[in-house]
Amino acid sequence: MASLTDMRFLLHDVFDVSAHFADLQLAEPIDRAFVDAVLDEAYRFTEGELAPLNRSGDEEGCVLRDGEVTTPKGFKEAYQTYIDGGWAGLLGDPAYGGQGLPGTLGILLEELMATANMAWTMYPGLSRGCMHALEDHGSEEQKQQFLTHLLSGRWTGTMCLTEPHAGSDVGLARTKAEAQADGSYRITGTKIFISAGEHDLSENIVHLVLARVPDAPSGTKGISMFVVPKIDLDGTRNAVVCGAIEEKMGIHGNATCVLNFDGARGYLVGEENQGMRYMFTMMNDARLGVGLQGVCLAQRGFEASSRYAQERLQMRSLTGPKAPDQPADPIVVHPDVRRMLLLQRAIVEGGRALVYHACMLADQQRQHPDEAVRGEAGELLDLLTPIVKGFLTEAGYESVNAAVQVYGGHGFIREHGVEQLVRDGRITLIYEGTTGIQALDLLARKVLMTQGKGLVQLVGHMKACAQSCEQSLPELAAPLANVADEWAALSMQLGGRAVENADEVGAASVDYLFYSGYAVLAYMWAQIALAAQQRLGAADDSRRAYLEGKIQTARFYFARVLPRTLMHRQAMEAGAACMMEVADEALLAAM
Amino acid sequence: MASLTDMRFLLHDVFDVSAHFADLQLAEPIDRAFVDAVLDEAYRFTEGELAPLNRSGDEEGCVLRDGEVTTPKGFKEAYQTYIDGGWAGLLGDPAYGGQGLPGTLGILLEELMATANMAWTMYPGLSRGCMHALEDHGSEEQKQQFLTHLLSGRWTGTMCLTEPHAGSDVGLARTKAEAQADGSYRITGTKIFISAGEHDLSENIVHLVLARVPDAPSGTKGISMFVVPKIDLDGTRNAVVCGAIEEKMGIHGNATCVLNFDGARGYLVGEENQGMRYMFTMMNDARLGVGLQGVCLAQRGFEASSRYAQERLQMRSLTGPKAPDQPADPIVVHPDVRRMLLLQRAIVEGGRALVYHACMLADQQRQHPDEAVRGEAGELLDLLTPIVKGFLTEAGYESVNAAVQVYGGHGFIREHGVEQLVRDGRITLIYEGTTGIQALDLLARKVLMTQGKGLVQLVGHMKACAQSCEQSLPELAAPLANVADEWAALSMQLGGRAVENADEVGAASVDYLFYSGYAVLAYMWAQIALAAQQRLGAADDSRRAYLEGKIQTARFYFARVLPRTLMHRQAMEAGAACMMEVADEALLAAM
Repeated sequence: MASLTDMRFLLHDVFDVSAHFADLQLAEPIDRAFVDAVLDEAYRFTEGELAPLNRSGDEEGCVLRDGEVTTPKGFKEAYQTYIDGGWAGLLGDPAYGGQGLPGTLGILLEELMATANMAWTMYPGLSRGCMHALEDHGSEEQKQQFLTHLLSGRWTGTMCLTEPHAGSDVGLARTKAEAQADGSYRITGTKIFISAGEHDLSENIVHLVLARVPDAPSGTKGISMFVVPKIDLDGTRNAVVCGAIEEKMGIHGNATCVLNFDGARGYLVGEENQGMRYMFTMMNDARLGVGLQGVCLAQRGFEASSRYAQERLQMRSLTGPKAPDQPADPIVVHPDVRRMLLLQRAIVEGGRALVYHACMLADQQRQHPDEAVRGEAGELLDLLTPIVKGFLTEAGYESVNAAVQVYGGHGFIREHGVEQLVRDGRITLIYEGTTGIQALDLLARKVLMTQGKGLVQLVGHMKACAQSCEQSLPELAAPLANVADEWAALSMQLGGRAVENADEVGAASVDYLFYSGYAVLAYMWAQIALAAQQRLGAADDSRRAYLEGKIQTARFYFARVLPRTLMHRQAMEAGAACMMEVADEALLAAM
Repeated sequence: MASLTDMRFLLHDVFDVSAHFADLQLAEPIDRAFVDAVLDEAYRFTEGELAPLNRSGDEEGCVLRDGEVTTPKGFKEAYQTYIDGGWAGLLGDPAYGGQGLPGTLGILLEELMATANMAWTMYPGLSRGCMHALEDHGSEEQKQQFLTHLLSGRWTGTMCLTEPHAGSDVGLARTKAEAQADGSYRITGTKIFISAGEHDLSENIVHLVLARVPDAPSGTKGISMFVVPKIDLDGTRNAVVCGAIEEKMGIHGNATCVLNFDGARGYLVGEENQGMRYMFTMMNDARLGVGLQGVCLAQRGFEASSRYAQERLQMRSLTGPKAPDQPADPIVVHPDVRRMLLLQRAIVEGGRALVYHACMLADQQRQHPDEAVRGEAGELLDLLTPIVKGFLTEAGYESVNAAVQVYGGHGFIREHGVEQLVRDGRITLIYEGTTGIQALDLLARKVLMTQGKGLVQLVGHMKACAQSCEQSLPELAAPLANVADEWAALSMQLGGRAVENADEVGAASVDYLFYSGYAVLAYMWAQIALAAQQRLGAADDSRRAYLEGKIQTARFYFARVLPRTLMHRQAMEAGAACMMEVADEALLAAM
């Protein structure tokens, strides 16, 4: 279950989302009441329709028979409700049937959906990436042909990148595209790990496929993008067939498909050999979405385990009984249980803040009237995207594992639903680019190649925030300023070493990603604590307790989580030599 | 697949296990040839019979029908082979049919079995705990009645501690035991999470059950231990029935049972109200076994992912192509992939060394002729047991997650078998006492309550080892000496704070456990590196490469893993206040 209270606090009290929307060029103004109404409505849908299907969907899974995939019971009906509610076109261009709302509203819907049921949410989730790519790069005709149906929700979309021999290295893709006399292409090849690749929710499925035209340059420069509809525009069944669905660790409710394209008819998007660039339009959005999944799973785990910790009675507090009339104290009295709960809370709320921050930057980049603001927002967003994806999925995975640990043996069995969060969550560290890929993107492309453009900006914001903390939250001010300075210095240092040896980048990258994540989360928690502090005076008792909880969690984060930067710094400073000097054979287990 | 090469290197080159056995009071001397023969024979059995059932066992799981549990295909036959091979009685007292071999040989067998098939290995694994308890605390009659059949393997055993409301807090157990005129007891109650609680492998199952006699003192002081055979001594079916088997995240091949005791006939072990003390005899042994499971799973993950990293071609090295004739380089060239492989290797081999070290201490404690040696070994073993269980399971879980990550998307699907390692491994952090319970045991009981007796000894050994490193491995010497000193100093500091506030112990405990684990693993890696270094001169080229791999992994461990102590130290120093000042309601997720 999502927490509307916490979502609203972030949106209104920390980030003042109404002011944010007021600054954008929107067709219709969006005020606080509208945001809250969308939240309420979406919450009713997600908790009412999607949450009840989360565990049953995991247990039933998807079934492939004769090329057709049947989704778990209730998935199809829930999808119809989703369409009927008008949710599918929330963000799209009104010219093609969309409602033209800014992306931040879309992420709120996505958050509520993914918190209720991650596997189900991936069906419409993949459509959104598809819509973005077509909006940005499709022809007018393609928008009429495909986008309108995606925005109505009657059709869904996929992203077809991976092939058996081409995973992180998309440039190795071999799927062929041969131009036909009528302007279309014949697509031939095998794509794997295609989420929502085949299912029974929608009338048609629009595959966005990366393929190579004859004589295309090798690598990513020779990749083109095609729309390949399952049912072709003339109503005939296209030659794309689901050959298998994968048996996997989690997200059983979503069909992960092997798709065989056997001379399927496809339509070129944009120009030939520009497919990777277009694909990044989808991918950046999708990466924010996957980072959000980490937060959503963590929210579910935190909610469940925090409730359990208040109910489960085991042992006495070391400082004397806290519930003397009971046979034992609730486990929430034990310091280590509190540590696990606060850790989850710090990840959930700090992570949510980071996702919202990134989405508001995306809004600004697309819809702010001031070009300078658009540019700065774009730089910051570029920097934050791999942190959102790479760090929040790792942190989210740690968080759901902590939820299981609070439950003890009861967490390992299926009954309470927390082990599913671990199984579902494991994929978030992998798809849309593994943690290692995100880390390289962050350090090599977003920091070193830009000479730290976004980073310098962010570090400036962090130090300004630290200054704001000095009066009312001095215990956060110095550590925040320090980590900001150290982050900048470390980045410079790594840049210097990278010039001498490119392997230093790869060797430091994942530690750099974690370092950056903890630094950014400190910035988020400082903002949350500041907002809470400012509202303490006018608050009644119950609100006061709520606000104090925020400040205390911020303190916990700074005292017990932020010090992790120490070990990441030292690991980075150790350099590449200790990994590169090892012979390849010593990296193979002895027999 | 286990690595006999690595196991032998540790046993003979690092720990000189033959000299160790020569020092013990054994019925028959054990030389190197004997150890190697046992390893070879056990390896043939485990790889031939057990490994092929690991994945099928996971997929089939166990089935309960009319109170009877059917294990996955092949499990029963493999168990028969196990008995026929004489493996069941390896360690037991020869007076009751055992072979009287020292525990370290038992752990080698257990390692090979658990590496091949963890779920299967739990069936005989539970028997061993049962045997120990009966050997140490059973009457002569009980040994004849039960132990002989356990040692032959015709019967298996269980440990019945947990009840729905009594998990970590065993003292809350309510199962009743009422004395009968004939000296037996009637046992009534429900036990849950009973591994191997019901199955079709053996002729009979011997349950060791914790229960309370009428008017017993409350808490753990009122717990007694009973033997409750499934088939009673007179051949009738006893009133203990499997009411359900749990649906769970992993170890599907092992039946996790709800056992209902409905006035079942039980036989008191030892004296009334002494059950907890007896149970600890089993538990300490079992805890070493669970720590070993962490290492075994990590070994499987390392072996699989290290092979995959040499075969899988994706992207080019940042320093230029390493396999120019291939479409891409093997992923082992990428620094971050090397990091993930070396991390696994450091955990696997360092963890294995720690388990062997602990088992050799257990041998000394039981079978060394010199009382002073027995005493010191016991102190060290007490200290190391929670580290083996708590730290090596956590490290093993990190390791198998790294294995999945090396595989990327291919790690999330079932095909390669690595996701199963994560699902199976998750329980090792929980059963036989969660990480939090181990951490409290370590800090409160093993360090503070003994005034650091074992710790002072261990720190002394570590510093002596650091001194040995000074000439040939100076890069390890200083960090090892420093972490030893710091560990001692931190322990003193925590002791001081604990006097003022008992919650400081709980607040620091898990960070203390991790700190201790990394410190001890540094000690293990220094010993491994020293042994390798000493053998370099006489080695041929291939052996030289093997030995250099050990030294390089040690360097990696010191450079990139040991710095984690920094963050754990800082987290401990932050103290309990940031967790205890938070209102309980702030630890409940907002709605």
